[in-house]
Amino acid sequence: MKTQQFVIIGLGRFGSSLGLQLMEMGCEVLGIDRDEDVVEEMSEHLTHAVAGDATDEQLLRSIGVRNMDCGIVAIGDDIQMSILATILLKELGIKTVVAKAISKLHGRALEKLGVDRIVYPERDMGIRVAHQLVTPNLLDYLQLSKDYTIAELNVPSCLDGKTLSELNTRTRFGCSIVAIHTSNGVLIAPTAMDKVHCDDIMVIIGTNDNIGRFEEEVVNR
Amino acid sequence: MKTQQFVIIGLGRFGSSLGLQLMEMGCEVLGIDRDEDVVEEMSEHLTHAVAGDATDEQLLRSIGVRNMDCGIVAIGDDIQMSILATILLKELGIKTVVAKAISKLHGRALEKLGVDRIVYPERDMGIRVAHQLVTPNLLDYLQLSKDYTIAELNVPSCLDGKTLSELNTRTRFGCSIVAIHTSNGVLIAPTAMDKVHCDDIMVIIGTNDNIGRFEEEVVNR
Amino acid sequence: MKTQQFVIIGLGRFGSSLGLQLMEMGCEVLGIDRDEDVVEEMSEHLTHAVAGDATDEQLLRSIGVRNMDCGIVAIGDDIQMSILATILLKELGIKTVVAKAISKLHGRALEKLGVDRIVYPERDMGIRVAHQLVTPNLLDYLQLSKDYTIAELNVPSCLDGKTLSELNTRTRFGCSIVAIHTSNGVLIAPTAMDKVHCDDIMVIIGTNDNIGRFEEEVVNR
Amino acid sequence: MKTQQFVIIGLGRFGSSLGLQLMEMGCEVLGIDRDEDVVEEMSEHLTHAVAGDATDEQLLRSIGVRNMDCGIVAIGDDIQMSILATILLKELGIKTVVAKAISKLHGRALEKLGVDRIVYPERDMGIRVAHQLVTPNLLDYLQLSKDYTIAELNVPSCLDGKTLSELNTRTRFGCSIVAIHTSNGVLIAPTAMDKVHCDDIMVIIGTNDNIGRFEEEVVNR
Amino acid sequence: MKTQQFVIIGLGRFGSSLGLQLMEMGCEVLGIDRDEDVVEEMSEHLTHAVAGDATDEQLLRSIGVRNMDCGIVAIGDDIQMSILATILLKELGIKTVVAKAISKLHGRALEKLGVDRIVYPERDMGIRVAHQLVTPNLLDYLQLSKDYTIAELNVPSCLDGKTLSELNTRTRFGCSIVAIHTSNGVLIAPTAMDKVHCDDIMVIIGTNDNIGRFEEEVVNR
Amino acid sequence: MKTQQFVIIGLGRFGSSLGLQLMEMGCEVLGIDRDEDVVEEMSEHLTHAVAGDATDEQLLRSIGVRNMDCGIVAIGDDIQMSILATILLKELGIKTVVAKAISKLHGRALEKLGVDRIVYPERDMGIRVAHQLVTPNLLDYLQLSKDYTIAELNVPSCLDGKTLSELNTRTRFGCSIVAIHTSNGVLIAPTAMDKVHCDDIMVIIGTNDNIGRFEEEVVNR
Amino acid sequence: MKTQQFVIIGLGRFGSSLGLQLMEMGCEVLGIDRDEDVVEEMSEHLTHAVAGDATDEQLLRSIGVRNMDCGIVAIGDDIQMSILATILLKELGIKTVVAKAISKLHGRALEKLGVDRIVYPERDMGIRVAHQLVTPNLLDYLQLSKDYTIAELNVPSCLDGKTLSELNTRTRFGCSIVAIHTSNGVLIAPTAMDKVHCDDIMVIIGTNDNIGRFEEEVVNR
Amino acid sequence: MKTQQFVIIGLGRFGSSLGLQLMEMGCEVLGIDRDEDVVEEMSEHLTHAVAGDATDEQLLRSIGVRNMDCGIVAIGDDIQMSILATILLKELGIKTVVAKAISKLHGRALEKLGVDRIVYPERDMGIRVAHQLVTPNLLDYLQLSKDYTIAELNVPSCLDGKTLSELNTRTRFGCSIVAIHTSNGVLIAPTAMDKVHCDDIMVIIGTNDNIGRFEEEVVNR
Repeated sequence: MKTQQFVIIGLGRFGSSLGLQLMEMGCEVLGIDRDEDVVEEMSEHLTHAVAGDATDEQLLRSIGVRNMDCGIVAIGDDIQMSILATILLKELGIKTVVAKAISKLHGRALEKLGVDRIVYPERDMGIRVAHQLVTPNLLDYLQLSKDYTIAELNVPSCLDGKTLSELNTRTRFGCSIVAIHTSNGVLIAPTAMDKVHCDDIMVIIGTNDNIGRFEEEVVNR
Repeated sequence: MKTQQFVIIGLGRFGSSLGLQLMEMGCEVLGIDRDEDVVEEMSEHLTHAVAGDATDEQLLRSIGVRNMDCGIVAIGDDIQMSILATILLKELGIKTVVAKAISKLHGRALEKLGVDRIVYPERDMGIRVAHQLVTPNLLDYLQLSKDYTIAELNVPSCLDGKTLSELNTRTRFGCSIVAIHTSNGVLIAPTAMDKVHCDDIMVIIGTNDNIGRFEEEVVNR
Repeated sequence: MKTQQFVIIGLGRFGSSLGLQLMEMGCEVLGIDRDEDVVEEMSEHLTHAVAGDATDEQLLRSIGVRNMDCGIVAIGDDIQMSILATILLKELGIKTVVAKAISKLHGRALEKLGVDRIVYPERDMGIRVAHQLVTPNLLDYLQLSKDYTIAELNVPSCLDGKTLSELNTRTRFGCSIVAIHTSNGVLIAPTAMDKVHCDDIMVIIGTNDNIGRFEEEVVNR
Repeated sequence: MKTQQFVIIGLGRFGSSLGLQLMEMGCEVLGIDRDEDVVEEMSEHLTHAVAGDATDEQLLRSIGVRNMDCGIVAIGDDIQMSILATILLKELGIKTVVAKAISKLHGRALEKLGVDRIVYPERDMGIRVAHQLVTPNLLDYLQLSKDYTIAELNVPSCLDGKTLSELNTRTRFGCSIVAIHTSNGVLIAPTAMDKVHCDDIMVIIGTNDNIGRFEEEVVNR
Repeated sequence: MKTQQFVIIGLGRFGSSLGLQLMEMGCEVLGIDRDEDVVEEMSEHLTHAVAGDATDEQLLRSIGVRNMDCGIVAIGDDIQMSILATILLKELGIKTVVAKAISKLHGRALEKLGVDRIVYPERDMGIRVAHQLVTPNLLDYLQLSKDYTIAELNVPSCLDGKTLSELNTRTRFGCSIVAIHTSNGVLIAPTAMDKVHCDDIMVIIGTNDNIGRFEEEVVNR
Repeated sequence: MKTQQFVIIGLGRFGSSLGLQLMEMGCEVLGIDRDEDVVEEMSEHLTHAVAGDATDEQLLRSIGVRNMDCGIVAIGDDIQMSILATILLKELGIKTVVAKAISKLHGRALEKLGVDRIVYPERDMGIRVAHQLVTPNLLDYLQLSKDYTIAELNVPSCLDGKTLSELNTRTRFGCSIVAIHTSNGVLIAPTAMDKVHCDDIMVIIGTNDNIGRFEEEVVNR
Repeated sequence: MKTQQFVIIGLGRFGSSLGLQLMEMGCEVLGIDRDEDVVEEMSEHLTHAVAGDATDEQLLRSIGVRNMDCGIVAIGDDIQMSILATILLKELGIKTVVAKAISKLHGRALEKLGVDRIVYPERDMGIRVAHQLVTPNLLDYLQLSKDYTIAELNVPSCLDGKTLSELNTRTRFGCSIVAIHTSNGVLIAPTAMDKVHCDDIMVIIGTNDNIGRFEEEVVNR
Repeated sequence: MKTQQFVIIGLGRFGSSLGLQLMEMGCEVLGIDRDEDVVEEMSEHLTHAVAGDATDEQLLRSIGVRNMDCGIVAIGDDIQMSILATILLKELGIKTVVAKAISKLHGRALEKLGVDRIVYPERDMGIRVAHQLVTPNLLDYLQLSKDYTIAELNVPSCLDGKTLSELNTRTRFGCSIVAIHTSNGVLIAPTAMDKVHCDDIMVIIGTNDNIGRFEEEVVNR
């Protein structure tokens, strides 16, 4: 598969983190930021980093932005810049444009301009952290639908050495344990005879309510 | 279970999103911010919202911060404020203190001050978005360990009507499909005879490499 | 005919001039501006004037913006405000939205957001003044097409007392004098026997080139 | 005719638009602005562009301002600069000085200093736009006197194929159609047998009232 | 004689000093300044003091500026304000308008606007102090023309007890002593027999050169 | 006589005017100012001009300030700079130090620091202008004591051709005319037979009251 | 003895610490500061605290500053304020005036104005801390002259139980131990038989060199 | 003994004074400050001075901070910088870290980060000066414990020529005179026959109360 090419406009905390991760995953990343110090620092880590005004069409053309597979407008707090840069990326013909929004109204503007995916980093992370704080044994989770979740739960000492058959989550709670994360690695598709041990992590799938009942009655007891 | 009580210092994008989510999950939330407009707006949505300086020990005492179960320092960009508020929360005896960091050095300072959990919202969301951009059919994912992931993948039209038995992900790729999200709901623990249809979402567990191979050879074909 | 209702966002030089003229023409005008002094001053002259943030959807709803026939975004230099206010006006269902642009890129953004008419006051007035400066006897003009213009020209002393027949603009220059503005009023559809006098104003129609030749050979002689 | 030479002080939106139009009309234009970036950009489009302080008499002399035919003080919002630059242009002996004013008091100051023509771009454009908004079929217009106007009106579908004789504007409304703008070009001095078609533009002369009645009774029916 | 009425715009160091002196000389003085603190302080010393914007025509009318005998624009450093206030005072029909200028160009603008008298306080005082510094015995002086001066000179001890006849300034230096200021008072039109004493002050009239020679040869010996 | 050497600290309106006048009178002037543009401009007109901080003792020594005959602290509005520069000049051993004060308290501080002469340019000029405004025919004056003044008065047309004997100022008003300034020059020590003419200037000495009476009864009649 | 009365101008870190200590020692303290928040906070701890401008002579008089025994100008960084306030305190007749200086030149200005004692808090504390850092066992010290010091030294474990006679500091190092600070209190004028123990503090008097030798050879061994 | 090496972060009044004193005491000092002018000036006086950001870990490493014996964070008013620099110094492994605090909360933060010694220069100097002001004859003092002090007192004229035996401080006041500072030097361990003279300084040890009684009854009589 051809190497994917990304252009990231705005190398703040979100943009730079995104860029570094893309680099790590083998992509080519061109970063643009107004701040020369930021660009200098990132230029060691990205394929290419350019200091300049992302609303300067000449600049975007001259550095070959139009050939990128995906453009990411990761501009911090300047809605005007974010909108104008988005328009330019769309007009230059970039297939996929992703943009960060900082308010609902900003998001609506981006939507109207045809942005393919709108990200609200701080809002979304606020929601994730809320989930984790409310459920002390919840390490992380993946929300499948409004009702269904996959959750990572710490195995408490009271469950140490229990088999999945003993836990019987399917019958009692309608939940299914799909993996067990032990210090030796991750066991996927565990059988009824596999055991959980204290400090293991159970990966469980089910409705929010059922997982909640399981936690309250079994895990947090 | 007794209602959990949270105090959130800083009601910016991250703090307010976190607070709203906690409220929705049935917790009590006390919010503090320097900006009176922000406080006025949030006071309709939180249990209580107060305008003031979070480094004013008198203020924190007078509004009963010490009785909270968990304190969250969600201050935006002011490292000094973040650090001083953190110290006060710890000194007031709050069991769990969570704080947002905006740089590694900031994170290290918070760690030394005994913060229980440090969150980097923009950095973490940058990493999530990077994963989703690189894999076009990847909707969301849950990283179980360095190697194992649970991923939500779109079912492409070429797989329409296939049974899990036909997909045979277990044998061919060492991956296991743990749920299918259809327009009718989420089917957990699907059997070999269950079918996927175009526009369904498959939830698959496996190593990063195996899921990657499955995507390239089957999904993105 | 029902009285037309306008909402003008931004009561700077352009917005206030537009609003005053609409009032004079019998329309109802609701003006919004962030600056309380400006609003106070304009409130005597408009149907209604409100101080507030035009990106506050609540505010726009509460003052009945959605019932207006036409919305005019006359915001001075703040592209972000201009774009967000435009989106709100469109979403509130106002049929016609007119917006002032301060740069081409700004104009393109407004276009993409579905603005019905984009005005560039300073640019357009620059063009008008250029025409008038280059042709000393040109008082004002109306550009009909790329080639055709209606122009108001001073009658120089050398033409004093000439009949249109004598001027013979139709035959000699392919231009037609459609009105004569004298100190007694405007004579429309003048006949060949009507005379022009020094200090009258001739209103002439023709191609730019022909009117130019007429000026050089007859008027500016 | 000798090429006309203009000096424009202030290359903002109004000044630059004016300068570009003058260039297009074959004049020589010398532009002055304090902002080096602006000057650099405009220097490609004007005969000459200089960065500097327009109240520096030495500078104005050294670049030959005194030989210009016309000076235009197009300074944005700085009344002091505008006034001092105007005085210098007058003292250098420039025959015609045109200046942009941003308020009535500013305009009065310029008048007292002997400025030949005072322009209020935003105010004037506000008035123009008001006219066009109130009359939906009005495309543009030329105000001949307080009472008389020449207006461009869309031909509505109900008038499709009508001859001017049938419209009979002269008798019924005291207005005269002086041109018809069709997709094939502009027909000036049309005869009674010429027809208007839907999407043509009629250019009509008459009193404001009469044109208004014509619109209401015939065009907007 | 009717009491003279003055309005002073700008109550800085120059304006307030001027106002206090006019009050002491029995005039009525109305002071206007933007700074409320300044106005409060001066209101005890002037007939009337008003805080407000001197370019606000309404304000000037409402406080009766038009009835003043003389208007003084003593605005510190804001040339724009100075010019606009000057125009308003002239337009309100004040007979005599005096204005302070801070640069030559500013002075030229004021002149063109019809100001009756232009004052350059710091420049003029610089010139006065220069004279006094160069001539150590010169206490003060009045320049009658380019060549003639009246000077106050200290009587040095070497001249103690000399009669004017002995000094013989008329014959030797073409200068005339027109007054002697002793500790007992001022003797005007002294006779040849009157004596000067050490620490008296001689008031001498003559050309600059002659007074200079007198000083060098007699006074500073 | 050896050329006098001055150092002027602060080349604003007062300082530069003072310096230029000293140069014209044949002195050597060293100017110091923080503003490089000011220094560059003045360096053509003064013996020497240096850009720098006048509270930097090293700088003052290195440019030879200690050898100057007189130091003038003409700093505009910065009392701190004025005081510190004054101390340095005194400590460097300059015999005579003159300083400009902008308030009474500032003046008292300078006095305590041993400044030889304190100047209040704007305050003093305010007083001078007040005198001239109150007495319309007063052109300029020299105050000899609290009671005595020498005044320059315009000769009004009603006195045209009068001899001093006819005016008889000595007997009637106790004033003495000590010079007549005509278009041909200044006549000092005029005799009783000398005449004054309309547009001449009389230079008169007397008490303030007597001169006032003379003006009211004779000049302004 | 009559209670001493102090006025402190400037309630920053130095001024407020000084004021609190004086209060604790039974004095009356009147504090003045421009910052109302600071004044409000300190008003609970001082006899009286006033918000206002310390260069306002009226204010100082109205609050009875002239009756104070001692005035302390503790103004932070504003040299101008410091100097003007100092002059006012002196002129109001306060016997003793102490002032904080932030630079040598500032100190010289205060000296010339007759300040009785000039304090450089940060400079002096820098010197104290330097001494303590260089000598690890030095806890604090009192410099008696350029050569002699009284120092507090930790008793190291190697000296545990030694009598002063054994230490023999007088003979070996020319130093005298004048007190021993034990956990039971301070023993002054200890005898030769008194012992020092580990963790006691010896207070020793001698020349800097001798104490240095004692430390190196005995204490820090 | 090996030369001690210090790094000082922040070269303001406290930091630079500390650095200069350390240099004088033979240590090596590396200074860091953000302000290039400050660094340039101090570089002549310290072993090494570097302009840069003390929170830049790379910088600190590159200039060898990790090899220093002691780090001093003397940053003025920027708590954030102070905290982050402190963390870096600790992490770089510097044994002893001293930091200046500007408020109690700041001090608590530094304490939690493991700072070895926290200095409050202005607060401590305020306390010292308070002691000296309250006791007019007190020149300086060393506080040994809450109760005991060593004080330097002026010998008043009434005690001139007295022997220590006559003063009998031990019996009458429980205080001991441990040194007498005369114009000839410091006499340590004075005997009962040694005399004090007017203008000598007595160094006395005792409880605060006893020294106070001695002062009141004997010294200040």
